[in-house]
Amino acid sequence: MNKKPLRIGLVGYGFMGRTHSNAYGQVNHFFDVAYRPELKAVCGRDRAKVEAFAARWGYEKAETDWRALVASKEIDVIDIASPNDTHAEIAIAAAQAGKTVLCEKPLGRNLQESRAMADAVEKAGVASMVWYNYRRVPAVTLAKQLVDEGRCGRVFHYRAKFLQDWTISAKVPMDGAGLWRLNADVAGSGVTGDLLAHCIDTAIWLNGSIAEVTAATETFVKERSSAVTGEKREVKIDDASAFLARFANGSLATFEATRYARGHKALYTLELNGENASIAWDLHDLHRLQYFEYSEDSRLRGWRSIHVTEGEHPYMKQWWVPGLQIGYEHTFIHQVADLLRELEKGKPAGPTFRDALATEYVVDAVLRSAQSGHWEKC
Amino acid sequence: MNKKPLRIGLVGYGFMGRTHSNAYGQVNHFFDVAYRPELKAVCGRDRAKVEAFAARWGYEKAETDWRALVASKEIDVIDIASPNDTHAEIAIAAAQAGKTVLCEKPLGRNLQESRAMADAVEKAGVASMVWYNYRRVPAVTLAKQLVDEGRCGRVFHYRAKFLQDWTISAKVPMDGAGLWRLNADVAGSGVTGDLLAHCIDTAIWLNGSIAEVTAATETFVKERSSAVTGEKREVKIDDASAFLARFANGSLATFEATRYARGHKALYTLELNGENASIAWDLHDLHRLQYFEYSEDSRLRGWRSIHVTEGEHPYMKQWWVPGLQIGYEHTFIHQVADLLRELEKGKPAGPTFRDALATEYVVDAVLRSAQSGHWEKC
Amino acid sequence: MNKKPLRIGLVGYGFMGRTHSNAYGQVNHFFDVAYRPELKAVCGRDRAKVEAFAARWGYEKAETDWRALVASKEIDVIDIASPNDTHAEIAIAAAQAGKTVLCEKPLGRNLQESRAMADAVEKAGVASMVWYNYRRVPAVTLAKQLVDEGRCGRVFHYRAKFLQDWTISAKVPMDGAGLWRLNADVAGSGVTGDLLAHCIDTAIWLNGSIAEVTAATETFVKERSSAVTGEKREVKIDDASAFLARFANGSLATFEATRYARGHKALYTLELNGENASIAWDLHDLHRLQYFEYSEDSRLRGWRSIHVTEGEHPYMKQWWVPGLQIGYEHTFIHQVADLLRELEKGKPAGPTFRDALATEYVVDAVLRSAQSGHWEKC
Amino acid sequence: MNKKPLRIGLVGYGFMGRTHSNAYGQVNHFFDVAYRPELKAVCGRDRAKVEAFAARWGYEKAETDWRALVASKEIDVIDIASPNDTHAEIAIAAAQAGKTVLCEKPLGRNLQESRAMADAVEKAGVASMVWYNYRRVPAVTLAKQLVDEGRCGRVFHYRAKFLQDWTISAKVPMDGAGLWRLNADVAGSGVTGDLLAHCIDTAIWLNGSIAEVTAATETFVKERSSAVTGEKREVKIDDASAFLARFANGSLATFEATRYARGHKALYTLELNGENASIAWDLHDLHRLQYFEYSEDSRLRGWRSIHVTEGEHPYMKQWWVPGLQIGYEHTFIHQVADLLRELEKGKPAGPTFRDALATEYVVDAVLRSAQSGHWEKC
Repeated sequence: MNKKPLRIGLVGYGFMGRTHSNAYGQVNHFFDVAYRPELKAVCGRDRAKVEAFAARWGYEKAETDWRALVASKEIDVIDIASPNDTHAEIAIAAAQAGKTVLCEKPLGRNLQESRAMADAVEKAGVASMVWYNYRRVPAVTLAKQLVDEGRCGRVFHYRAKFLQDWTISAKVPMDGAGLWRLNADVAGSGVTGDLLAHCIDTAIWLNGSIAEVTAATETFVKERSSAVTGEKREVKIDDASAFLARFANGSLATFEATRYARGHKALYTLELNGENASIAWDLHDLHRLQYFEYSEDSRLRGWRSIHVTEGEHPYMKQWWVPGLQIGYEHTFIHQVADLLRELEKGKPAGPTFRDALATEYVVDAVLRSAQSGHWEKC
Repeated sequence: MNKKPLRIGLVGYGFMGRTHSNAYGQVNHFFDVAYRPELKAVCGRDRAKVEAFAARWGYEKAETDWRALVASKEIDVIDIASPNDTHAEIAIAAAQAGKTVLCEKPLGRNLQESRAMADAVEKAGVASMVWYNYRRVPAVTLAKQLVDEGRCGRVFHYRAKFLQDWTISAKVPMDGAGLWRLNADVAGSGVTGDLLAHCIDTAIWLNGSIAEVTAATETFVKERSSAVTGEKREVKIDDASAFLARFANGSLATFEATRYARGHKALYTLELNGENASIAWDLHDLHRLQYFEYSEDSRLRGWRSIHVTEGEHPYMKQWWVPGLQIGYEHTFIHQVADLLRELEKGKPAGPTFRDALATEYVVDAVLRSAQSGHWEKC
Repeated sequence: MNKKPLRIGLVGYGFMGRTHSNAYGQVNHFFDVAYRPELKAVCGRDRAKVEAFAARWGYEKAETDWRALVASKEIDVIDIASPNDTHAEIAIAAAQAGKTVLCEKPLGRNLQESRAMADAVEKAGVASMVWYNYRRVPAVTLAKQLVDEGRCGRVFHYRAKFLQDWTISAKVPMDGAGLWRLNADVAGSGVTGDLLAHCIDTAIWLNGSIAEVTAATETFVKERSSAVTGEKREVKIDDASAFLARFANGSLATFEATRYARGHKALYTLELNGENASIAWDLHDLHRLQYFEYSEDSRLRGWRSIHVTEGEHPYMKQWWVPGLQIGYEHTFIHQVADLLRELEKGKPAGPTFRDALATEYVVDAVLRSAQSGHWEKC
Repeated sequence: MNKKPLRIGLVGYGFMGRTHSNAYGQVNHFFDVAYRPELKAVCGRDRAKVEAFAARWGYEKAETDWRALVASKEIDVIDIASPNDTHAEIAIAAAQAGKTVLCEKPLGRNLQESRAMADAVEKAGVASMVWYNYRRVPAVTLAKQLVDEGRCGRVFHYRAKFLQDWTISAKVPMDGAGLWRLNADVAGSGVTGDLLAHCIDTAIWLNGSIAEVTAATETFVKERSSAVTGEKREVKIDDASAFLARFANGSLATFEATRYARGHKALYTLELNGENASIAWDLHDLHRLQYFEYSEDSRLRGWRSIHVTEGEHPYMKQWWVPGLQIGYEHTFIHQVADLLRELEKGKPAGPTFRDALATEYVVDAVLRSAQSGHWEKC
């Protein structure tokens, strides 16, 4: 139990600040790894709030300038969980300061920022990781295993969508706590960078690189009030985004994300159709994997619903017993567990900034195609 | 196409009269059998209605006394689709007249009538069949195949229920068109003979004989108006009935039926748990079979939902193409198809009256146990 | 019961010949309409087969040249259920002969043929109907009711797909019985005209006209043997087709069809997301409609699964009782029932050739966009 | 953030020791309560293991004799998570020492022990709580709200089952780590006390007291080896248990539990059918509640699947955002949160030992009826 400390400096105390902090606190309760996260400092702009957050989660210090974290000799890891417009600047500074850099997805607001981030960590020779947490849903990791074992055979189709409905009301304001996602200056883009980025990351992980896309975006509510100033402002993000894609392996794909699909809260679904088997998954029941295997006896063919709670399922030996499901935040715990495991071996736990940059190329092509009206290479 | 005629005399033009007539009309369109049903006569108490029925379905004659059918030399088969209180008398007379006798389930109103019916057909040496149509749902027939192939291994559990909600309102009257099921004098019993009889028939077919039961029945609405006379009368049927059972093979079972399960229209579900595999089915999606097979790779275990629409599935080659489902009335068509096929071979298509009597013994034990408060042998 | 005859001449005795014939035979058993289809003649190229078909389904005559049907004075309706390459010629001739013309979907092999067909029936002043049968699935008709009642509000999204897996094997030949769908000369196109046409028809019916599309098509198996000659030939149809669309009402849509989605037999799904409610449907469980209504009490919001078997549901009063489902072929019976009902009123039961032409414009735009790589107007 | 400490002494470091410890560690991260659990000591029989557990979960001390915890002045709460045969002795001693006593379910091994436990805490005037964690599944708590709001109306039916399959193999030994549940001397009973106890607790909570039962139990594997000594011994627990019940409110119920239902890992399902609404829930998808409300428009009636992840749903405001599910262990965190909240108000968070005793009366009646073969009062 003499675990080595890994000293964390967290930037951002919002939704993602909570998921990351929880992961740091929980990982050693469930996973046998040589490292132990030490919560050295958290940084946020509102002093009272950041202090309350530090007290709640056990951070030793609360700061209001992220530069204090980057400069601190007591910190090994800078973990960026603040809004998108801060990612590039902090990440690059942290890399230059020799820190391991973890960053919430997406990388930057655009391809330029993202590329600079990936270059910076490589130039500095520091480890990096992007929190594409859905790779660590046990059912999704199982999907990856099945694909890697060659069970699907030649892949013909991939389809993914991420459907929400929380911005349908025109009364939802555009700024203010937690609402920066509706502000293009802060977020970079709308659902393309926010939701489709998740879909694209998993897709590339499971099915390889995406060659080209044709896309459409839509902004259904054109004007929203600022929660800060009260004045009406033009909405510049994409409320919805859909694209067709061709993967390098020849498979054809459809992707869609929106915040205007009434009835769906966070319905991220994916499906891959191969010659011999197909796989489907759904975030609303994240502990299940749907699997169809072509069998000789046609009477017995059917989609099976795998309740991914067996000890042999990825990550699940560490949790409870078969039949008892885990939830959303566990994906972040798994990501930290992998990070700590890989640290022992001296290699990075993906996705690195370079890995994540692949998604940004696709995001960029989607946004370009939505403007140009024709296919764009990724 | 020179098919041999099988001359039908139908008694009853209600719901079941329609399903049987449809089956007679459809069977030769889809199944290659040597016989062709000829609709010679239909009998009912209301002349105008029975004539309209005859015209609609193509019966040559309409009668108001079933004895005319039994006496007719132009009729080979007497098919009884009238209320339960008529089954025994008609069946026995038909058997004595040398007719093949088909009867809607249950056999009689009670064990005594049922036994007399089974004895009568055997004494007369005539063929008999009871319309336990759910055996001919392709998914249920597939379940039977899988059990018979030994795929399940030793059976530990069986459970079945049949849930409806159509009599919850105390305003539903007790007599009148289609409502004789609420009148114990006509029906014999309530849900035990009406719904549980289906569950028991399938259970015995799939899992062998039932040794003993302990039961509870309930009448939730104690009084209902007669739709005929308007006066209030005591309700004497069982509105709900549940029982525990031990099968001869040592498996333990639960059964339940009710017309007071809000939200369920005709939810007949069954499940069998064996050492190596389990099977489940649900009338509300009758074209699917749920199947779980214990596999070596624990990662891949899961209940599979088999869409029973392949050409290799029972009866389905005769219908459409994979993915295109059939409905309720097809089960009757299958029953007639089997009847005609077996006729060529000179053997009866089950369940015969004798087969169906096994269900009546269980029904009787259930009703006895509900009175006695202890286990009763079947 | 003195029903007026409607004298039918059917061209084609394959899969669709069966569904149509069944509909003609069943409609008067279940629906109270003033007309009665009379099966005067069926036409097919193989004399033995067409005669067997006529005997099985009760057609008075069997012919091997469709011109005999068009010329016959004993026929009111020419119903075209033969391969796509015959549609235009027969339909135009039938119209010119003053017949009511019914035609399996799609209209012609391409927009040119389809337009000529629509023009011909209008010029001749005859009634026409295309068998887009999925409009008459009770659940889909219910969806139409709910949309027309304004329950959904402003529509943001529509998505549909039609997934099959029957041509994955490269051994499936290209011609021969029932396989003309793989031959572009006969079929016109692949899944775009075959499967997407269904999706587009329903979409336009539910959500109005489609303004523009961007599309991708793919042919996964490039060469197949002819079942007739045995020689290898290039496959010219689209095995898969996907497109993004903008409807005239501003909603954004995704569409996809393929015969390479392992595990899906005939999975036609559709979903519409409106401001106040969403609707989803799935052909594999065609008797259910998924419905989400935004409610005040956020605790009670949820997708409800409506078992479309109530007497108040479209068409269902004519069938059985709540909980007892119907199947695929019933959609054709409903279409004939509507045809006969409307005939009494002297107006056409949609979709007419003109209505169906709207789908062909979209199909054409999809195929053009798949070539051009940019958006195409419909 | 100046939270008051609540000093915990935990007995047992197995599966339940982990769930409780996790709850103590997590509660203040997510819930705003005035108390903070302090992990003072954990006790277990194996020194090395208990020390490792203490280190992992942050207990200050590790002990091997529970009397040390009961005697300690530094401990406010004795939490019993050790095997059933230790519950009564520890609980009674802890109560006598003036501690708050928490105990894993069931109370004792039998009614006698359980009654003594309830009496002891009341005599000592100390607070008590039993970890019937499933009451704190948000979907189940929501069910309780809906029932309490009178939405269901008169209740006709209740049904529950808890199906597992982990002891099917006769090779599973009878003693040894985690296997004491198969040893009647330690466990008291088999699935009746282990699994049905959960079903009964929730049932009474939702639907009131149970008046009488008739039951059947079964031991499918009669002999198992001891993992400790290797010798074969008779299995004395019930492998399966089923019963019919009448509630005080007149509703009729079925209950079943087994460890021989192939394909089910921990399938605890419950359903309540009321005059106006029905409710169903399933542990395998614990974040969903199925709800059917009788509505005026029969076209729109259907079971809705409520994804219980809204801020207005019980406990969920403290977690993530709509659509993101929680898992099994959260139910224990909720229980501790309620315990700490109620502590502020000076009243116990149920179920107390007295509350839990109601379940033991039913368990006892079930086991008695399984012997007597007739109905037993609870």
